[in-house]
Parts: sequence; C-alpha cells; structure tokens
Amino acid sequence: MAIASQTVSDICAEAKAASRELALLDAEVKNKAINAIADALEARTAEILAANARDLEAGRAANIGDALMDRLLLDEARLAGIARDTRKVAELEDPVGRLLDEFKMYNGLDVRKIAVPIGVIAVVYEARPNVTVDAAALCLKSGNAIVLRGSSTAAHSNAVLAQIAREAIAQAGVPDAAISIVTGGERDELEQLATQEGMVDLIIPRGGEGLKNALKAVATVPVIYAAAGNCHVYVDAAADLEKAIAILMNSKTQRPGVCNAAETLLVHTDVAADFLPRALKELANAGVELRGDERTRALAGAEAGEIAVATEDDWATEYHDMIIAVKVIDSVDEAIDHINRFGTHHSDAIVTDSNTAAHKFTGEVDSACVYVNASTRFTDGAEFGLGAEIGNSTQKLHARGPIALRELCSYKYVVEGDGQVRG
Amino acid sequence: MAIASQTVSDICAEAKAASRELALLDAEVKNKAINAIADALEARTAEILAANARDLEAGRAANIGDALMDRLLLDEARLAGIARDTRKVAELEDPVGRLLDEFKMYNGLDVRKIAVPIGVIAVVYEARPNVTVDAAALCLKSGNAIVLRGSSTAAHSNAVLAQIAREAIAQAGVPDAAISIVTGGERDELEQLATQEGMVDLIIPRGGEGLKNALKAVATVPVIYAAAGNCHVYVDAAADLEKAIAILMNSKTQRPGVCNAAETLLVHTDVAADFLPRALKELANAGVELRGDERTRALAGAEAGEIAVATEDDWATEYHDMIIAVKVIDSVDEAIDHINRFGTHHSDAIVTDSNTAAHKFTGEVDSACVYVNASTRFTDGAEFGLGAEIGNSTQKLHARGPIALRELCSYKYVVEGDGQVRG
Repeated sequence: MAIASQTVSDICAEAKAASRELALLDAEVKNKAINAIADALEARTAEILAANARDLEAGRAANIGDALMDRLLLDEARLAGIARDTRKVAELEDPVGRLLDEFKMYNGLDVRKIAVPIGVIAVVYEARPNVTVDAAALCLKSGNAIVLRGSSTAAHSNAVLAQIAREAIAQAGVPDAAISIVTGGERDELEQLATQEGMVDLIIPRGGEGLKNALKAVATVPVIYAAAGNCHVYVDAAADLEKAIAILMNSKTQRPGVCNAAETLLVHTDVAADFLPRALKELANAGVELRGDERTRALAGAEAGEIAVATEDDWATEYHDMIIAVKVIDSVDEAIDHINRFGTHHSDAIVTDSNTAAHKFTGEVDSACVYVNASTRFTDGAEFGLGAEIGNSTQKLHARGPIALRELCSYKYVVEGDGQVRG
Repeated sequence: MAIASQTVSDICAEAKAASRELALLDAEVKNKAINAIADALEARTAEILAANARDLEAGRAANIGDALMDRLLLDEARLAGIARDTRKVAELEDPVGRLLDEFKMYNGLDVRKIAVPIGVIAVVYEARPNVTVDAAALCLKSGNAIVLRGSSTAAHSNAVLAQIAREAIAQAGVPDAAISIVTGGERDELEQLATQEGMVDLIIPRGGEGLKNALKAVATVPVIYAAAGNCHVYVDAAADLEKAIAILMNSKTQRPGVCNAAETLLVHTDVAADFLPRALKELANAGVELRGDERTRALAGAEAGEIAVATEDDWATEYHDMIIAVKVIDSVDEAIDHINRFGTHHSDAIVTDSNTAAHKFTGEVDSACVYVNASTRFTDGAEFGLGAEIGNSTQKLHARGPIALRELCSYKYVVEGDGQVRG
C-alpha cells in the first residue's frame, strides 16, 4: 500500500521492478500467493468489515444513494465470495510462456513466439471494493504487477484489501510491490498514472464515461477502454418468435445494469404485428419502461400502456436500467446500419432461422460479440470459459470482448541460431 | 485523393464507409485491385517521375540534405521495385476470416473467434514516397481502409501515387475511398487525424521521435508506435568469438540507418581482453566511430584509434549511423539490466554457447525480439516470413515486433445458438 510519502511515480517504479521478477515466477508460486490472498481475506474478515463500515458511514453521510451504497457494501457472504473467486483464479491455466507460434526461418533460425506478461497494469475503478482483489489476482496470475486506483468512496475498504493482499503474497515469496494502490483521493493521480511512460504499460479504466473521458484527455500510456454496451436484439423476418421473446427478455431484464444487457429492440416489419404486441406486453409486465418509434407505438396493444416517443438520443443511450427503445425496421441491412451507427460495438444479437440473414448479420455487424439466436448476456469471460475477466473491451486493438488472462499478456519472439547474419 | 474542399473528418468518414465494404471483399477481388495498383505504377511511370521531380526540386531549393533527398528520390528502378513488392502483397495469405479459436460453451453455444479487419488505419509517415503504396497495399489486403498523411516534402509524389492507386482499385471494383490521402501541408491535420474517434480505428506513425511526441500529445484514438530501436549485441563469457565478430559487424554495419541495427556492444569482462581489441579494430576499419567506457578504452589496441568516452547519453542513443557505444560488463545480469534500462525493447542479441546464459537472457530481456547467436538485423516482417510489414512495434499491446498482415487485423466472436438465455 502506498505510504503517505510515496509519489505515484515511486509506486510505479517499484511496480516495474517487481514486474521483472513476476515475469519469471513459476505457476506454482503465483498460485500459492493467490490462494494466500484468499486465506487472508477469510482470516481477516473483521478488519475488512471494519474498514468497509467507515466507507459506508461516509457514504451514508454524503448521501451517495442506495445503488452506490449497495456496490460499496461488503459482508461476510460477499467476502467469502471474493475469496472463492480468488481461489478460482489460482486454478486457471497459466497464460505466461504459452507457445503462440513456432517456425524456422529460411536460414535455419528457430523462431518461437511466446506469451509474456505485459508488465505493469494500472486498473482505475469506481466504487466496488471487490475489484481490488479480483484485478490483483488476475494480474498476479498473468505475471503482471498491478497499480490500483480506486475511488475515494471506497478508500478504506480498498486500502485494507490491498494491504492484506500485499502481506499475503509477500509471505508466499512474491514481491509485495506486485500489488500497489494509490489512494484515490486526488484527481491529479489519474493524470500521473496515465503518463508514467516506461513504467506503466497499460491502463484499464473500469467505470463510466466520465472516467474514460478524463483518461482520454491525458493518457500517454496505452489504454484499453472497457466498455460501454449499447447492445441490440434484432428480431428478423425469419425469427422463431418464441425464442425471440425469451432472448429479448433475458437480454433486457436478467441484469439490466450491466454492459451486455440489451438497450434497443429492432423488429423486422414482416413480423412486427405478430411479435410486438406480445413482446411489449411482456416487457411492460416485467417493469420495463418502453420508448418506441411511430410504427412500434401504433402496433402496441393497450396492455403495454403508454409508450413514449423514442428519439435519436434513445437509440444512442446505454440506459443501464429497466428501459428499452424499440424500432420497426424494413430489412436486415437496416438493422445492421442502425447497430453500427448507434451501438457501441459490444454485443448484438439476431434472432432468425434464416442462414442468409444470420450470415449477413454476423459478417457485417461491427461488434466484439455477435450472437445468432442467443442472449447478449453471454459476453463474459467466465461464460466463455476463459475464467474471470478484468473487463470487456469494445476497442479493436489487442483485446476485443472479454479481457481475461490471455488478454493480459503480450508476447516476445525468441530467435535462436548458430551465427546467422543478414545478407 | 483529398480534394481541396474536403476536411480531414470528411475523408475519414468516407474511409469508414468504405471500410465496411472492404471487410466483406473476397481475397480475389482485393488481390486483383492490388495487382491493378502495380500495373498502374508501371503504366504511369512518367507521370509519377514528373511529380517526384517537383518534390526533388523543392527539396534541393530548401537544402534538405543528401540523405533526405535520396529517400525522396524515385526512378524507374525504384518504381519497378515498388510495383514488384506490391504484387508480392497480392500473393500473401488473406489474413481476414482466419479462425483463431473455436469452442463450445457449457450450454451448447458455438463460439468462433474470427480475424476481421481493424477498420480505418491512418498511416503518418515522413519523406519516403514508397510508403504510400506499401502501406496502401497492406491495408487493402487486410481489408482496412487507409488514410495516408505524408510529409510536405513528398507532397507531389505522394499525391500522384495515391491518386493512381485510387483509380486502379476503383477500376478493379473496390471503393476508391479505401485509399485516401490528406495533404500533409498543415500541422493541424495530424491532430485532426489523431482525434477522429469512431472514424479512425488506429494510427501508425512511421517516423522519428518528433512525430511520435507530437502524436502522443494529442492522440485520442489508439496508436501503435513503430519503433525506435536502440538495439544491443551482448558478447557473453561463453561466446564463440568468431561468431561474435560476424554478428556484431552485421548488426552494426550492414545497414546502420534502420531500427534493427545495433547501437551498443556489451562485452563480458572474461572475454573482453580477447575480444575487444580485434572487434574495435574491425569496427574502426569499417568506418564505425567508437565510444567506450573506461575498461573498453583501456583494452583498445592502437589500431582502433582514439575512442571517445561514452556517457549515459550514449547508452540511451539510437545513432542510426556508423557509431557504436561499447561497454565492458561483469555478468549476464548486468547486461540484462543495462538493456532493459537503456534499450527501447526492440531487438537485442546474446552471443553465447551457454544454454544457461541464453535462457536467462531470452527470459529476462524485455524486448520484442531476443536473439541467441544471430544478428539483430533479422527483425523484419519479410525475414520472419510474414510478408511485408508496415513497421515494427516496441509496444506490448496488440502487436509487438513486425506489424504485418495478421497484426493489421482485429477479431470478433461469432456465437451461434438455438435460443440460449443466461440463467
């Protein structure tokens, strides 16, 4: 944990030095350290909850609202969950040292392309203190040093969690500078972190648009923005409407506050009269607020209640809430254009029994994950079988979709010869 | 080609629209268009040389110096070379649509991870007009639209090359907005290009530190910095000194102006007295200016001539010239520390017959390409068998080392089901 006199740059320099050792650690040593973190979280629960109580008290005094208070809250069950998730990271395959490619050059040189850690990863996040541990475990497993920067709302919780993790890994023989935290108290820290060229190899912000824009304005080190999700369900002319209802309801309502939840429903005009009255009714019954274009509003039955007029803003909005925008469109091409124009290139689904439509949609929708006859909610490292994830990328460079252990690695080429020179 | 009234943002929007079509093109169509560019370069040689003559004349008037004049020069032989290289790009494997991974989720969902183009790539480059064609061919082959921004020095040459390429691909059925050029006349263009979020997916600067720093200060879209090379040859205690001489001379002198040429020689103290007098003499005979630490200077024979004192600046400098810095060190660890501290993480070589030393060096030197008993000069897309390259990355994200066709791709996950929803 940062002590008061340490600057961001000191912390990052220590992390960089530690990262050189981490890159060489055996899987066994890293796993032992990760499990030691889990053990320590359980052994020191009282201490963690006391720190969390201070954050909660401050949050209550500052009236931060129920949703944020809930995200901030730790209790025994949640801590046990964090410990369990941490142990799961220990069980995952070590991504470091994987042979990604191997070939012989024309002159006999042996080339191996080998996965290596990225180095120092800064993770900047908002209220949820579990991120402190999740992100630290994933970075440690992938041989990276982590510099954490949480929000001031969770400062006490994050500080004690990071300190406990540091002590645990040090006892397991891993340099404690593998896990560092800056206090999260000052705005300037973000800029300092984002400009530590040569020290910080990557910054991953986990938070809202404000955080992303703040970073974009200042960052000179590479950033992976993870990830707004304005996701779509498109019900095609050739859709099985039973499946369409199930996929729509799951994509929208199963967990509306996350990035892979659907925000807009597009319906082909050929099935709109059959599909929309029932779909809108089910959405309304589930408590979803409806916003529709003219054709949608005309087709809605009385049971769907009043439907507000959807504007361009609605097409572009990630509600993160029980609200959906609905539009009737005339072709799969129009659906694709709408999604590419208004979406955030995260997760989009087509419901169709037409191979032609499915092929066109998956080929032309420019998103990290494109679904045919399945819910958008599957975009997730754990669902994909990649283990835990540190976020979801909507960028096209390095990692697109779930950022899991493999995506926390870079590679190097190791070239071995017996004296070859270039002619 | 940009017409006078088009803004950078107009050009990028057209490129974005074209990129959606490009992503869907068959290899055949792309290859036909690439070969059409090569044909047009040959057919319109006179026109190109006339434009180039105007740039050369302006360069002469502005006294830009012999090296720059040579980089600017086109003649029939060079143009034929560019056409030949362009046709080679057509012969390379299409990187788009490659199946990178495939798995079934626990619930039966089929997941395919498929290589897709990045979208719109802006390439910002300095004097050499051949980059206009090379970069355009590589981007077209990988399904990306390119926005070129050359230097004003080569404005006439670049403009006519880009225009010829546009006309050629349009005749081959590819949207001409797949290849665009901004004039390169104004400083502000760089900032505009670098902030076209949602339009430009990647910027690749090919040029010196000034260009890179200018971009770092303003870029909000992702950048791959390609690539300063402060490369090292380390002659280990267990080196075969014959091989060491050959590797050193090739790494330093075969083409000193490029990024994979060596800039610093490190010699283990155990072999310094045997190796250095001969090595320094050969370097001096080849016309290489020598800068050494105290131990190096003490060991140099009279035949090496006067050796200047190497400073910290020398260790950190990419000379791009017939100059070398030389240091005697005490261990492979010291060599690794020196390289990680002063190097640019590009290409570094150890000469040794010790497996232990080789293993340590390749494991701990934090560079894109690490060589055992081979010249640093092999870091090159063509040498690696990857086909042409658009640059060499010393970043750790997305692409490290040669940026060839595969590195000009992103990927998407296509997930197919029969109604799966998340529980």
